Amino acid sequence: MAVAHRVVVVGGGFGGLQAVAGLRRAAVDVTLVDRNNFHLFQPLTYQVATGALSPGEIAYPLRAIFTRDRNINVLMAEVADFDLAAHEVKLVGHDPLPYETLVVAGGSTYAYFGHDEWREHAAEVKSLESALVVRSRLLAAFEEAEEEMDEERRAALLTFVVVGAGPTGVEMAGQIGELANDTLAHDFRRIDPRSARILLVEAADRVLTSFPPSLSTKAKHSLERLGVTVLTGRTVTNVEADAVTVDDERIPSHTVVWAAGVTASSLASKLAASTGAEQDRAGRITVEPDLTLPSHPEVFALGDMVRLRETTLPGVAPVAMQQGRYAARVVRDRLAGRETPPFRYRDKGNLATIGRAAAVADIKGLRLSGFLAWVTWLTVHLFYLVGFQNRVLVFIRWSVSFLTHGRGARLITKR
Amino acid sequence: MAVAHRVVVVGGGFGGLQAVAGLRRAAVDVTLVDRNNFHLFQPLTYQVATGALSPGEIAYPLRAIFTRDRNINVLMAEVADFDLAAHEVKLVGHDPLPYETLVVAGGSTYAYFGHDEWREHAAEVKSLESALVVRSRLLAAFEEAEEEMDEERRAALLTFVVVGAGPTGVEMAGQIGELANDTLAHDFRRIDPRSARILLVEAADRVLTSFPPSLSTKAKHSLERLGVTVLTGRTVTNVEADAVTVDDERIPSHTVVWAAGVTASSLASKLAASTGAEQDRAGRITVEPDLTLPSHPEVFALGDMVRLRETTLPGVAPVAMQQGRYAARVVRDRLAGRETPPFRYRDKGNLATIGRAAAVADIKGLRLSGFLAWVTWLTVHLFYLVGFQNRVLVFIRWSVSFLTHGRGARLITKR
Repeated sequence: MAVAHRVVVVGGGFGGLQAVAGLRRAAVDVTLVDRNNFHLFQPLTYQVATGALSPGEIAYPLRAIFTRDRNINVLMAEVADFDLAAHEVKLVGHDPLPYETLVVAGGSTYAYFGHDEWREHAAEVKSLESALVVRSRLLAAFEEAEEEMDEERRAALLTFVVVGAGPTGVEMAGQIGELANDTLAHDFRRIDPRSARILLVEAADRVLTSFPPSLSTKAKHSLERLGVTVLTGRTVTNVEADAVTVDDERIPSHTVVWAAGVTASSLASKLAASTGAEQDRAGRITVEPDLTLPSHPEVFALGDMVRLRETTLPGVAPVAMQQGRYAARVVRDRLAGRETPPFRYRDKGNLATIGRAAAVADIKGLRLSGFLAWVTWLTVHLFYLVGFQNRVLVFIRWSVSFLTHGRGARLITKR
Repeated sequence: MAVAHRVVVVGGGFGGLQAVAGLRRAAVDVTLVDRNNFHLFQPLTYQVATGALSPGEIAYPLRAIFTRDRNINVLMAEVADFDLAAHEVKLVGHDPLPYETLVVAGGSTYAYFGHDEWREHAAEVKSLESALVVRSRLLAAFEEAEEEMDEERRAALLTFVVVGAGPTGVEMAGQIGELANDTLAHDFRRIDPRSARILLVEAADRVLTSFPPSLSTKAKHSLERLGVTVLTGRTVTNVEADAVTVDDERIPSHTVVWAAGVTASSLASKLAASTGAEQDRAGRITVEPDLTLPSHPEVFALGDMVRLRETTLPGVAPVAMQQGRYAARVVRDRLAGRETPPFRYRDKGNLATIGRAAAVADIKGLRLSGFLAWVTWLTVHLFYLVGFQNRVLVFIRWSVSFLTHGRGARLITKR
């Protein structure tokens, strides 16, 4: 019996998961490599960061997703490098993985504008672990403020700065607004959480630049109603343990959430180094119209870490998912000796939520805001959540939160 | 206006929570001190440790419980010591808390038979954090075994040892049995999780010594059906990173869950030191029939960390809850100038679950096992879970797990 065609997929995010799922019934052996044992529904990590959802509700074990697919193997490991000449993925602490086809979907991370020393003081809403750090810091700031006798320090503890007004930054600022003005409003005896100052700092001249300007304006108004001060056209120039400097104004604050400077995963640089493929300013590697690397038709790269030569697509889940499905289709077509037309992104719309019954949606030119956009957002996110059980759990959490203004999972856990 | 009578309650577990709740409508100012910002439903931590439930589903913010009770203040802080002469609780990093009445409900921890060096290699199912460590270790052992080429090391990775066959140890061993033989059965490609060896080691001659012998026998058979090897009358004599020694047999294993040697919280010793109250071998402090300390009628101690002079009550949630309610009643009676009869425990029964549709129950002499005991266990635990939302979430998790044999929250999170 001949050895089956081996496909290695790196990354169990939206793109990688779809690539693997598309090969379920193909005559290939698939190995999915991820440093975590779970798929994270990243668009909802900010809800974990504010205690609205529990980690297990937005993450699902990768092995459980593919438990019935005997041709799919899951490996929890970190990629050290690629040896494209030898057709091998080098792993940390494991034997190299040989492949006939490689799919790399490493996603993106946040960059600190060349100031990596800021990273130590800022928190992020990217991985599950980082979201739990944000949750603990946010909640601990209120706890400390309640006990703080010094007025200035108390004000600094109750000042929250979110950097970057893309969807994550906007959602995060809106959620902190709800936390302070609604969920926690009556929980303290000495401080009034509603006095918290929540700043959203954005270098561009409006929030949500990937949306039409009219929706940016609506989003800004929704944020302001939630008690968020929106500072556009302003740049963060320093981050310290107890302050953030915006342009040349030093703002005392103990909690900075960083949601700016999206940069391709370091896997992009590793692929670029061995292929000579171009990288743009955000580190994204340029791929061919069929998502393969130049002169490496057996290597696909997709999602947040790539750009197509002709167009730049937004770094959102639907792009990665469609690209993952496309890569799987090319692999199947090749095995069948069929040609595949170049990848084409079908833009189904753009959604961002701000808070309770407030969202914006841009669906093929149809611009929604407010309650209707929010219901659309809820439906779409529930639909795409992996696992029937998670959908039900999240739906219940959200329903109860909506009715009771509660936020059940606001636990401070130690590291 | 006179300063209200100040009550400080230390510990937000079952006992402390009931003490505070009993003072909701009393003319007192209550401060509840806990090192965590949440109440943990401890009887279900083992379900978090095996990925059946998510942390946020068995923990509930203390502030949220008492948000409407303006006379109740919550303080997240660690107790350093008590100054009973000055009527003050000394806190780490906070000003001392003055009181007119003090209620101490510090609970219990695990002791390592004088071998604290074992603690480093063993994992526990006590706090939420420790349960997450167990979860990560259990799941990582299977992941590593899948990649391990050396047969002996693989066998060691797939050997799980639970020490102590009280309710927690029995439940934990049963859950690991289900994890290996059911949930994960088809998730791996090279190893067969059903080949895992699960040992439950107990020094006494039967499991669940707090139950009648007939139920111990039933529990043992249920455990064996789940693939657990029960070793009674055997003592753990050493714990290393890669082995456990039972009597003089060294058993290679990478995952040891410690559930033996229950010992009173160190707060008991602190109270004993300043009052001269007796402590028993397990560190429990002896209290008067009204749960106060000798010659300190203003200081109550209750729950797992105390014993009554006449009887030793089991270290279970119902005892702590009844004692918490009793302490609150004494405080109310004193304010009203009423006498309170001594504390009397109303034993409503004893429950332990082993796994899917398997449990034992001893309710006032009525001895149940199997499905009926299990349904009783489910109902009681759901009933006592704090917060309507948590009840619904846990009910759904359990229903789905029962139907699908799944276990949704099995995430490996880094520290």
